[in-house]
Amino acid sequence: MDPPVNIHVLTATQVQERIANGDLTLVQYVTALVDRYKARDDHIQAWAAIRPEQDLLDEARRMDALAASERGRLHGFVVGVKDVIMTRDMPTRYNSPLHESDLPLLDASTVAILRRNGALIMGNYSRCTASIHSGITGKTQTSEFSATAVTPGTRNPHDSSRSPGGSSSGSAAAVADMHVPVGLGTQTIGSIIRPASFNGIFGFKPTWNAVSSEGQKVTAPTLDTFGLMARCVGDLQRVAEVLGLRDDEEAGDVRLGESRFAVVKPPEWSEAGQGTVSAVENAVELLRKSGAQVEHVTLPEGFRDILSLQSTVLRHEAGVAFLRERGEPISSALAEFSRGIEGAARRRQYLRALDALAALRPKMDDIAARYTAVLTASALDVAPRERGWTGESKFNAMWTALHTPVINIPGFAGEDGMPVGVSLVAPRYRDQHLLQVAAAVGPLFEEKGGWKSKLG
Amino acid sequence: MDPPVNIHVLTATQVQERIANGDLTLVQYVTALVDRYKARDDHIQAWAAIRPEQDLLDEARRMDALAASERGRLHGFVVGVKDVIMTRDMPTRYNSPLHESDLPLLDASTVAILRRNGALIMGNYSRCTASIHSGITGKTQTSEFSATAVTPGTRNPHDSSRSPGGSSSGSAAAVADMHVPVGLGTQTIGSIIRPASFNGIFGFKPTWNAVSSEGQKVTAPTLDTFGLMARCVGDLQRVAEVLGLRDDEEAGDVRLGESRFAVVKPPEWSEAGQGTVSAVENAVELLRKSGAQVEHVTLPEGFRDILSLQSTVLRHEAGVAFLRERGEPISSALAEFSRGIEGAARRRQYLRALDALAALRPKMDDIAARYTAVLTASALDVAPRERGWTGESKFNAMWTALHTPVINIPGFAGEDGMPVGVSLVAPRYRDQHLLQVAAAVGPLFEEKGGWKSKLG
Repeated sequence: MDPPVNIHVLTATQVQERIANGDLTLVQYVTALVDRYKARDDHIQAWAAIRPEQDLLDEARRMDALAASERGRLHGFVVGVKDVIMTRDMPTRYNSPLHESDLPLLDASTVAILRRNGALIMGNYSRCTASIHSGITGKTQTSEFSATAVTPGTRNPHDSSRSPGGSSSGSAAAVADMHVPVGLGTQTIGSIIRPASFNGIFGFKPTWNAVSSEGQKVTAPTLDTFGLMARCVGDLQRVAEVLGLRDDEEAGDVRLGESRFAVVKPPEWSEAGQGTVSAVENAVELLRKSGAQVEHVTLPEGFRDILSLQSTVLRHEAGVAFLRERGEPISSALAEFSRGIEGAARRRQYLRALDALAALRPKMDDIAARYTAVLTASALDVAPRERGWTGESKFNAMWTALHTPVINIPGFAGEDGMPVGVSLVAPRYRDQHLLQVAAAVGPLFEEKGGWKSKLG
Repeated sequence: MDPPVNIHVLTATQVQERIANGDLTLVQYVTALVDRYKARDDHIQAWAAIRPEQDLLDEARRMDALAASERGRLHGFVVGVKDVIMTRDMPTRYNSPLHESDLPLLDASTVAILRRNGALIMGNYSRCTASIHSGITGKTQTSEFSATAVTPGTRNPHDSSRSPGGSSSGSAAAVADMHVPVGLGTQTIGSIIRPASFNGIFGFKPTWNAVSSEGQKVTAPTLDTFGLMARCVGDLQRVAEVLGLRDDEEAGDVRLGESRFAVVKPPEWSEAGQGTVSAVENAVELLRKSGAQVEHVTLPEGFRDILSLQSTVLRHEAGVAFLRERGEPISSALAEFSRGIEGAARRRQYLRALDALAALRPKMDDIAARYTAVLTASALDVAPRERGWTGESKFNAMWTALHTPVINIPGFAGEDGMPVGVSLVAPRYRDQHLLQVAAAVGPLFEEKGGWKSKLG
């Protein structure tokens, strides 16, 4: 049983099937992923310190030896973990010199659940950028603390002169470049959706707190959300299931011919780049051709200030979350971030913003519930070229504040053939439904949207 | 300079002053606390594994050697940490066999900030009850995970046949019994206020998320709140200051003659025991005699269901937070707790409850802002005698749901001369103001309320 040459291109669900059929072993698969990592990551810099090869192979061998009945629901799933999520066997450093020696010996809730269900954790995204932490080997692939302007050295695998987005930079690049099929990340503003769009992959931010964020760096507790990245919806569905994401009603297949979409343009739509404008137009056209109804919806007046409310909440909450770090000798970027926090609104304004966002959430649910899903932009445009800039978040931020599930669907092309995604949104706790919508829309956009990954 | 015989009775602020004056060394003080612990804790069981005596004395000696200019703002403060809050030098076990070997090597945000400011961490509250974790030495003084019906063996120091309350049982008993002047705890329902009332000490739950809960076991993220216990308001104020608690306006001294209190009776007031009824009556009378205006206020209709809303939110969020543990071989108590979670409301009901609580918060702020503070009950009555029962939380729960700061003021006596406290409440982010109110009301109630601690 020779494995195919390029087994690193397989999705986790495909790997699982081949393993179940006896056509592939986990050792073969992990070997292929490690080979891919070795061939590519000097350039992409999605990770540094993955676990030692021997350790990974030993674990794969142990898992290969399990009888079918002993194998977990995620047997065959190999997962990369953003370095703001704790792992008991690897350091967790947040791309910060303050946490250089942190070895929690604890798994985050999500990591523990995935391991128990048979997933193999490939490693942390971690490599320090020499400019900031010179002398330290290893470490990062997250913007510092998922928060400051310190970006990792990660490159966009589709064009290494461009950003992979942030803060979940490493997860996005590693999934797009096929070092792993599934990556874990976090989103406080747009840190899952933006990099997913820039890298041409699926990125899924579930309903706020539908998945535990325990063991994940806190930036702003009412906004921080755990999220996932993968190259197909099926992989996201399998992991979401294991992480306990359930709707009240079982989500059935979505038929596009019977569906109805609302197009919602984010605030400041006039700033949208050509890639995003044409991606949304193409998406609407493809949905209509598939028999779906699509209508343009303007959100009520109360939603107009949502980005400013979110910014007020974020700055205040980050001020609380980073009080600890702010007393330590800190990087200039964290100091700059801190000055932003210190200039934050008064507590009264914070509470007004917090309460206003809370009041908008059920209103958004009501609007979204009238449709199969809401269609919107994922990012301003394709990945930017500026160094040290992971892109603008104003087009993907509001769904974090509204706590709704949101998923980036790749498939469209912008400048220089770079990927551009669009987002689908559903009411809170319609996560499984949203994944079903993505399962119907994803293949359509990937097939007819005009963009295909050239990586292989 | 001989220290006084009973230096363990001093408050942290008094200790700090004596150290600054050269009348006491930290080594002498820590020695006295360790002696107190040794003399009492076999009986009280507030802790098990405090740090090795030699290690504590070495740290005290190192701190004694610091020049005045190098000493932190909390120099001389010795603090006990509830075993659901991570400490880098001691295990964190949550009174759970699942976390028997957890050694995070990380401090919770609060612990790190206290250490940086010169506090000495006495140890974890941790001793396993033999019935549950036989064979393990050491460990606990929290109800299991701050959540299940597994209580620690801790006894109420004022009457060892009674409960110290929970879940912050060990912090409350250790502060009341003078093993430490300050204890850290957490409150999701009533886990600071209830044990503070039962033990005759001050217990302070700040505004939700005004202090970072990073590194603290998650039970229900929208309810979990970090809190403090001490034997005087001054100690709470000093620690609160260091933890960054600030009001928009600087809080000035409170003159009782110019103040105005609202008495709010919690839902199901008819169940109040005699101790609580007379404590609230006494409190009202003492305030009036001091020249304060006191009026009885009935909260609007919308507040009537608050405990049921809170319970719906708690059960759903705990279902998410404990998904990890529920997949492991678990204790029968955690299994029972889990069955409660599994019977939880549908997600739609959760969202309705979550949004309804969010809408009540600014309403409560508006009501409370009309008064110097709200006066209410802290617990149903004195500490109960039943084994394995830490007392009813229905009288202290709603303020956690409303995110307001709340403080237990001791000073009243119930059945058998046991302590009963009353609570003061202020609008969100009026934490420093509330502490100022407590600084005025506390001495009054302690002096004239009729209860004094016989421990010494």
